[in-house]
Amino acid sequence: MAIPYPHFIATAKAAMDAGLQAPSSSVMLSQDDLKKIAAYKAVEYVDSGMVLGLGTGSTACHAVDRIGQLLRQGKLKDIVGIPTSMKTHDQALSLGIPLSDLDAHPVVDLAIDGADEVDPFLNLVKGRGGSLLREKMVEGACKKFVVIVDDSKLVNFLGGSGLAMPVEVIQFCWKFTAARLQKLFEDAGCVAKLRMGEKEEPFVTDNGNYIVDLYFERSIGDLKAASDAILQLAGVVEHGMFLDMATTVIIAGELGLTVKNK
Amino acid sequence: MAIPYPHFIATAKAAMDAGLQAPSSSVMLSQDDLKKIAAYKAVEYVDSGMVLGLGTGSTACHAVDRIGQLLRQGKLKDIVGIPTSMKTHDQALSLGIPLSDLDAHPVVDLAIDGADEVDPFLNLVKGRGGSLLREKMVEGACKKFVVIVDDSKLVNFLGGSGLAMPVEVIQFCWKFTAARLQKLFEDAGCVAKLRMGEKEEPFVTDNGNYIVDLYFERSIGDLKAASDAILQLAGVVEHGMFLDMATTVIIAGELGLTVKNK
Repeated sequence: MAIPYPHFIATAKAAMDAGLQAPSSSVMLSQDDLKKIAAYKAVEYVDSGMVLGLGTGSTACHAVDRIGQLLRQGKLKDIVGIPTSMKTHDQALSLGIPLSDLDAHPVVDLAIDGADEVDPFLNLVKGRGGSLLREKMVEGACKKFVVIVDDSKLVNFLGGSGLAMPVEVIQFCWKFTAARLQKLFEDAGCVAKLRMGEKEEPFVTDNGNYIVDLYFERSIGDLKAASDAILQLAGVVEHGMFLDMATTVIIAGELGLTVKNK
Repeated sequence: MAIPYPHFIATAKAAMDAGLQAPSSSVMLSQDDLKKIAAYKAVEYVDSGMVLGLGTGSTACHAVDRIGQLLRQGKLKDIVGIPTSMKTHDQALSLGIPLSDLDAHPVVDLAIDGADEVDPFLNLVKGRGGSLLREKMVEGACKKFVVIVDDSKLVNFLGGSGLAMPVEVIQFCWKFTAARLQKLFEDAGCVAKLRMGEKEEPFVTDNGNYIVDLYFERSIGDLKAASDAILQLAGVVEHGMFLDMATTVIIAGELGLTVKNK
């Protein structure tokens, strides 16, 4: 049951802090407004002194902005950020957030990041932004992982949005790997496609790999078994299913915020 | 039970073809001689028209040389080689072996490659040469996989030689990944070390990744479980255990050749 915005003071305040009108049932919120509201809510989980995993993508971007703002205002202190992509690294640097990495800080107190899909068990698909591997490394090292989404990201099963489940693969013989991935999930009507970037060239990840996007017609069933089968393919580096990792999911919808805890 | 060389005509012939004296119990064979004998024996499995996986390393190198020789002599025809490394690619090219890749030939008839360790169940450790990922892709796509070793490579359990079991990892936060790998096998007294190349720089694989070498004091137990646990670590690309992949292992020792079939 979502908490309607007009009665949810913290959110209304977050929305106002975000430079929005205090939401009411008569105000139409854009998808970006919803992302911002969820992001600001998530940053309430941040305390001074924390080592923070900083996510990547249009929703996480709002959280990183907000953390920078609170640092500047002196409301947060002694934060160390662990960025999950080069892009987030650059954004956080420009905001003056002190940065480090997992080598120096192998335990992360809290990570905040968006997701492309969230299933009823809080399993996620991530990586449509292309940073799934670094995200999974950082978010796998977290004590708490708060996921922020607008309600368009809720699905009955992973892959259920009809959008991609990304798999990071080495460039060497990627067609061979893509064909094996497609075959692995042929019962789910899987289609595997190489992700393209700009200039008609394949998209290349921060780690120098390609992304093969998998599209499913039906559920792939046992997610743990699917994960193991994908990882057992030589040539696969990582996949975008984040199973049993999120500890909290904050969902912003037209009617209010919902917070789900594991 | 090894077949003594003097009574094993094919091997004696192979040894002679290899430019060695026909071996007898009074002749000391060097480790390289043994590698060459095993390699030449393996090439007897090659028929004209085959798509061949070409291994990497000091033993496989002899097999690739031999295939080139038989092609030049017209004793083999219509071979397509799938090299498992840049190095083997260059070697095969210089020998005039026609080359292709898994994208064009996703099914490989036969692969021949060396191994760093062979256990009693024909499970292997490979990758001390640094090409484990491409080797695993090619050799995982084979109908038959013939492994050639001298008898110093036989172990009671994988890791039992005291030498490295390599894991290919992305460069990003490799220390973090190495620490997690070491922790995973702490019961086996595991020590994880970054592989160094020339000029005191980390060794970089053909795929742009690092290698973390794992050293074990004791057996790691269930190999399948160990494999899954390693692959589940985000940051790991592939490991050097080749489980249930070899169909034949040819072992050359001082006393003769042994052929083990799965």
